[in-house]
Parts: sequence; C-alpha cells; structure tokens
Amino acid sequence: MIPRYFFLLFMASAMLNAQPNPNDAARINQFYDTSLLEGNAYAWLDYLTNRIGSRLSGSLGAERAVAWTKAELDSIGLDRVYLQDVKVPKWVRGPKEFALIETAPGVTFNVPITALGGSVATPSVGLKAPVIEVQGIEELKELGRKKIDGKIVFFNRPMQANLISTFQAYSGCVDQRYSGAREASKYGAVGVILRSMNLRLDDLPHTGAMSYGDQKVSKRIPAAAISTNAAEKLSNLLKLEPNLKFLFRQQCKTYPDVWSHNVIGEITGSEFPNEIIVVGGHLDSWDLGDGAHDDGAGVVQSMEVLRLFKASGYKPKRTIRVVLFMNEENGLRGGNAYADNALLAGEKHIFALESDAGGFTPRGFSFSCSDEEFAQVESWKPLFKPYLIHYFEKGGSGADIRPLKNKYNVLAGLRPDSQRYFDHHHAENDTFDAVNKRELELGAATMASLIYLYDTYGLAQPIASELEQ
Amino acid sequence: MIPRYFFLLFMASAMLNAQPNPNDAARINQFYDTSLLEGNAYAWLDYLTNRIGSRLSGSLGAERAVAWTKAELDSIGLDRVYLQDVKVPKWVRGPKEFALIETAPGVTFNVPITALGGSVATPSVGLKAPVIEVQGIEELKELGRKKIDGKIVFFNRPMQANLISTFQAYSGCVDQRYSGAREASKYGAVGVILRSMNLRLDDLPHTGAMSYGDQKVSKRIPAAAISTNAAEKLSNLLKLEPNLKFLFRQQCKTYPDVWSHNVIGEITGSEFPNEIIVVGGHLDSWDLGDGAHDDGAGVVQSMEVLRLFKASGYKPKRTIRVVLFMNEENGLRGGNAYADNALLAGEKHIFALESDAGGFTPRGFSFSCSDEEFAQVESWKPLFKPYLIHYFEKGGSGADIRPLKNKYNVLAGLRPDSQRYFDHHHAENDTFDAVNKRELELGAATMASLIYLYDTYGLAQPIASELEQ
Repeated sequence: MIPRYFFLLFMASAMLNAQPNPNDAARINQFYDTSLLEGNAYAWLDYLTNRIGSRLSGSLGAERAVAWTKAELDSIGLDRVYLQDVKVPKWVRGPKEFALIETAPGVTFNVPITALGGSVATPSVGLKAPVIEVQGIEELKELGRKKIDGKIVFFNRPMQANLISTFQAYSGCVDQRYSGAREASKYGAVGVILRSMNLRLDDLPHTGAMSYGDQKVSKRIPAAAISTNAAEKLSNLLKLEPNLKFLFRQQCKTYPDVWSHNVIGEITGSEFPNEIIVVGGHLDSWDLGDGAHDDGAGVVQSMEVLRLFKASGYKPKRTIRVVLFMNEENGLRGGNAYADNALLAGEKHIFALESDAGGFTPRGFSFSCSDEEFAQVESWKPLFKPYLIHYFEKGGSGADIRPLKNKYNVLAGLRPDSQRYFDHHHAENDTFDAVNKRELELGAATMASLIYLYDTYGLAQPIASELEQ
Repeated sequence: MIPRYFFLLFMASAMLNAQPNPNDAARINQFYDTSLLEGNAYAWLDYLTNRIGSRLSGSLGAERAVAWTKAELDSIGLDRVYLQDVKVPKWVRGPKEFALIETAPGVTFNVPITALGGSVATPSVGLKAPVIEVQGIEELKELGRKKIDGKIVFFNRPMQANLISTFQAYSGCVDQRYSGAREASKYGAVGVILRSMNLRLDDLPHTGAMSYGDQKVSKRIPAAAISTNAAEKLSNLLKLEPNLKFLFRQQCKTYPDVWSHNVIGEITGSEFPNEIIVVGGHLDSWDLGDGAHDDGAGVVQSMEVLRLFKASGYKPKRTIRVVLFMNEENGLRGGNAYADNALLAGEKHIFALESDAGGFTPRGFSFSCSDEEFAQVESWKPLFKPYLIHYFEKGGSGADIRPLKNKYNVLAGLRPDSQRYFDHHHAENDTFDAVNKRELELGAATMASLIYLYDTYGLAQPIASELEQ
C-alpha cells in the first residue's frame, strides 16, 4: 500500500503547479494539430459507414468490420494486432415492419415502426388488438390484468426535454424499452409498442435492445418502437376513439449464437509494458442507418489515438491498447470477454477510456474513480482549456469497459455535446453525413491527450504489485 | 465617480459568496425549463426561414421580416414596439452566376460560383481571362503588375483548420474577400475569384461582403467566390496547365439606397427605466439559403428572451430592449443608426448582448468590458455551470452593438459551438433544417439568464449621472 503522505505530497505539488507543464501543453497541441490537419478518423469513418455499413452482431457487416479494422490497425505499425474470440447473439430483423392504426373498420393511418432488438415476431399476418396507453412500467400494476389483458400496451413516457444531458433523459425512459414487454406480458398484454427514445418530433422509429429475461417462450410478446410523431398521433386518436385498434407485423428472429471478435491493437510500453491503458469503442451497431455516431465515431477515434501517437513520434512508456468491442448493443459479450481474458491473463489495467456517446464536439470526460484519482485528473484541466474542454466530472465511463473496473484503476468516458445525439441514436439517420469532420477530429485529439497524460503520469496512487489483480 | 473601495467591497463579497445566490439559480433554472419545455424560438425560426426566407437588405424578404417580427413582438405584450428608420444599400444578384475552367479550347469544367455582395457585374457575355493564384493580398505586391495585368486573381488561402475557434480561422482569411478585388485591380487584374470561406471541402460557394472603398467606378472589377472543391481543382489544374482560362458571368447590380428599419421592442424597467439593456441579432441575411443560422437564430433568440421574461412573470427593474438590426451583412447601417439615435436621445445603455454566431449549442460569452466589470461577470460563472456554459472570456461582442461601446458599459456576444458554423455561413445550406431545436432553445435561455443578472445587479461600477453619455 502506498502511504497516505505520498498522496498528500502529490496534491500539494499539484496545487503549487497550477500552470500546466509546457512539455505536456506542447505535446497536446501537437495531437490537436495533427488530428485537425492530417487526421485519418474521418476517412476511416467514411469507409466503415459507407463501404461496410451497419454492423449488427452476427451480421456480415460486423464480420467485414472486424476484418477491415484489423487490416487498418496492421497498416499503422503497431507492435501487436489480434482478434479475441467472442460468442455473440444473432438476431435478424427480417423484412421491413408494417403498422397501422385503425380507428374504425376501413379507417386506417400508417405508422413508422421498427422491431426492438431481441423481440419475437408477430404472427405472420400481423397482430391486431386494442391499445392501452401507459406512462411507464409502474402504471401496469395500477391498471391490473383486467384493463391490460388482450391488449397492446403503448409505452408513451417521453424523454424529459428540460434535462441538459440528453443521456440523463434517455436513462429516465429506457426501462420502458428494455423491460416493457416482459412486464406487460405478466398482465396479459399481447404486444408492446413504444414511443421512440427521441427528443425530437419526427417520423423515424428508433430501435434498441429489449430483454425477456428468463421469461418462458410462450409468454414472450412482440415489441416495437414507433416514431415520436406517430406516438403523438396515436395518443391523440386514443382520446377520441379509445377502442381503436393497432396492427403491426414483424418477422424478426433469434438464431443460435455465432462466433465473432473483439479487434485489439497495441503499442507496447517502453518502461512499464505491464501497465495497460485501453482506449476503445464498439464495432457493432444497430442495423438501421450505418452506425456512424453509435459507435463508428468511437471506433475510428480510438484507432486514431494510436495513429496520432505514431504520427507524432510519441513512444508511450506504458502499453497503449485500442480495443474495438463486439456486441455492445445487444449483449455486451465483447466487453465481458475482454475483462474475463484480462483477469485470466493477470493483466494490470490502470486506465480505460471509451468513446460511445457520438462524434459531436467533445466537452470533456466523465470519470469512474476514487477522490484521489479525480484530484489528479482535475489538476490536468488547465491543459485542456485552450481546446474548450471543460467538463471533468465523476460519473459513468462506458458499457464495454465497465467490467474492467476495480478498486484502484480509473475508467473514463468521452463526453461530447449531447444535444443532437438522440436525433440519430439507433435510427436510420445515424449515418456518415450526420458526423462533422472537425468535431470527430477534436474528439480524437482530446482522447489522445488524456491517454498521453495517463501514460506520462500513471495513476496518482500506483497499484502496488502485491495488490495487482 | 464611484470610490474604489466600493468596488473592493464588491469583490470581497463576490469572493466570499462563491455559492450562487439561490434566487438567481432558481430564476435561471426557470428560464431553461421554459425555453426547453414551452419555447417559441424554434416555431419563430420556422416561420422566418420557411415562410419568409432570405432577407437581404432592400429585398422584399427583408421588408416582410420587418413587418412580421414587429407583429410578433406586438403579440407578446411588450410595453413598446416600434420601427426605427434606416437607409440601406440595395444590391441585387440577378440571374444565377455561371463559371467554367477552360484548360484547352473546348475542354471545360463547370464550377459552382456566387458573386460577392457588392460586386459589379461581368460583361453580359461573361469575363474570360488567364488566372494567377495567390495566397493573399500581400502576394500581389511581390508579383507586381507585370504578372497580374489582364488576369483573374484567384485568392486561395484556406481557413486554418487547426484553430479551435473557426471564427479566428475566418478572421485570418476574410481580408481576401473584403478587399481582394480593390487591391488586385491596382495591379491591372480584370476580375477576382475567391476560395469560399469554408473549412469543409464541398460544392457550395459562399458569398459575403466585399468593398471597393472609394475606388473609381472604372477601376472596379467583378469578384466572386467558388466552392472549396472547385478551388482545389482549379489550383491543381493550374499546376498542370498554367495558361488555362477561367470564365465567369454575373449580372449583379447596385441600386440606389432604400429605406428599411430596425425593429425594436421593450419592457420598461420598474425601478431604473432609464438604464437600458439591449439584446439583439440582425434581421437581414444573405440571399442564398434562408439565413437560419446567420442570423435568424439570433433574431428569434433575442425575441425569446423577452417572451421568457413575460412567460415566467419576471418584471425587470431596468428597461430590456430587443433590437433586430437591419443591414449587418453589407453595411452595418442598422447598428450605426441605433447607436446614433441612442446618443441623440441621451439614452444610457449599460449592457448589450448580441447573438450572431449561429444557433448551435451555447458555450458561453465573450465580453468587451473593463477588468472590474469582467470580475463581476466571472462571479456569475457558477450559476451557469449546470447548463454546461463555461466560456467567459474578454473579447469581441457583436458587429451591430459595437457602436454602442463607451468607457463604462459592457457589451457581450453569445458564443455557441463554432465547429459547424462555416459549413453553412453565407451559403445555400444555411437553412432551417441545419438548426437543432434544443441547441437554439439552450442559447435563448443562456441569453435570458445573463440579461436577468445584469437587470438584477446592474454594472459593477454604476455610471454616475454626471458621466452619463
């Protein structure tokens, strides 16, 4: 264990040293210059989204993305590039879904709809039933089986627009998507439709993961999301005609698990090769759009961090590893497999950074760490001020790296501007054209700068060897 | 004169009082909630851009915008709404411009081009001449008349991509647009073409103001901007074929000045009605696109500040005035007229805020003020932290309000995220769809909050009556 006074000494020196170290400032400036003037992240994203396209786990796109990112990492002169086996779920959407509202026989309104990932199909002729609107899972119990039995439950609690962080607004709603079908089924519901997780009123349905947990197959009911405009319309029509019916048809199917891979590349540390720093994003995406923001951006930014190190002649002291995780969207198998392997191999991960919040202008980072480690991070803030990076807060990191957390290490998530993210999230407009080149490049440089600082200074409280995991 | 110790007392109290005042925090929270949940800025912008459209000074669109914004301000229950006469230039583009590169007789490449605002026309059959590429006005002198005479000068210095502020990159290039033709003419050039002020490589030409100063009419040569892709192509072709010719045709024309208006509305202060606080943007726009970011956003945000005050029952102590300035783009006649009138009327303007940097996520403000006033502003920073507003720096304010500056008052400019601004600036894609509703609303709430604070606390060093302007 490191004596407490070492930490106090560090804190005192950090406070005395309010001016950023000029070497650090120069190096960070070089990362930003190189990223903005000679960056490669945008060209990579172009290929990943426009040539390969969507990358749902188990799909051909996912496998092409594995092969292509491995080849690209091979081309930038890393010390080691390899694949890590991961068994992933394989869910297939099937033909485009169809839905309509029927207010009276022959009086119908078409509705944009998308099956939720993991859902079962409707009967092949579609499912038609009356609708009951609820504002959340809690309301199911109040209504009870009598009012729900035989109906389609319509979850319509919107994202809260007055929250500044749209991720917070998402967190406040997403239980309806993830668990709505499982819960509604308990009260006899025959299907579930969901207001899309989108702050904007538009015509795009947004998919995303749902789960039946260990529910019996016979109890599983189909679940789908409708666009926010359609949700408004359905809600209004229900007030006029409570007995209206909703019809939807989806032919999605879950196949047996298949093998896929995490893609990993590293620069071996020159002084402390056994101290590992991870930077990553997830390679899989939903099958609508081409996963440009979620998480093509994080993938190419993470690759770019190592390329920027090579391009600017920076030789890290610690081992810097880019990990492109498979299956974040519907299983997290890649993140779990990576952490399991790290544990088995006795690897010491001191820091991990994930970019999985879109390719928008970077605002800062969220850190999962102790107060002592956070104090070190805060001492670095002045280095980021010239780049308008200001957000350094304790909080979550990223879904794929979270399994790496232990008592000692630090995890972080890049926090880009979140205002536009849910306009595109899991929808067919999550495409290359929605990503701005400069914003993407600023994110990559910001990530490289933080990785550089952890490489240079390590943890504030180094993990003593007897405490290594 | 206020004794120095008053200021020191204020500073001491500001430092003791590092926690934001809870009343201020609650009021500011109310502005954000109201703007995000029941805002009207986006609906106003929809009308201004999609129903009225572009608003170049002297155009029908500009006059419709004057009438409509006045009517809207009348509808929100202000104490006074009125028009202020402004005589403005009237420049008309005429039919769509045409251009091509001719590398050999019959071998041509079409080029997207737009006349610069204020330029003269080419001959009606077009102007065709060899091209000389330069990186800036300075290079004209080095080349001299011998190499320039009879040619079209091609200004191709790009915006510097590694500057974090795109406005700084713009400032470093815009002299080519504003003064290029006047300077090139002195060396015998017959025309000027300019690489568009755009950091992105695309096919859209960007217009903007240019000036001949007091140059003789016979010396005035036509000036136009080509898209960044076209500039790259022309530069590359010039390396292969230095004797290529460029042909362009534009039929733009300057008419005699016409009368137009600033649109003004105010809530009269309940305690200090003679202390005036201005919030504004400019109502005119270029004629390409519909001026959604430049400066439709600033117009509707400024209107929204007063609407938010009314909607949340806030009764200002000082007079809050929204000013929608005419003719920022090509003359600044509205801003100058407003300041002239204020001076003649003996009005005391203590604070003015302009929004004219796009409707993107607000990051903070830039302040033109003394150190003492800036200290007060900095003491308010914690109030803005929950809304991720962090940028408080000394610097410029806004072109329209700058003529109001005196030794005592404070001017400020809203500083939104700048990364995407020049993708749209003065081009046909500066349209409603490029503005995000939440980003626009966050900007309006941020502006309302700063106006509220100046209304509540006034200047740190109040202007003594004997010193009033």
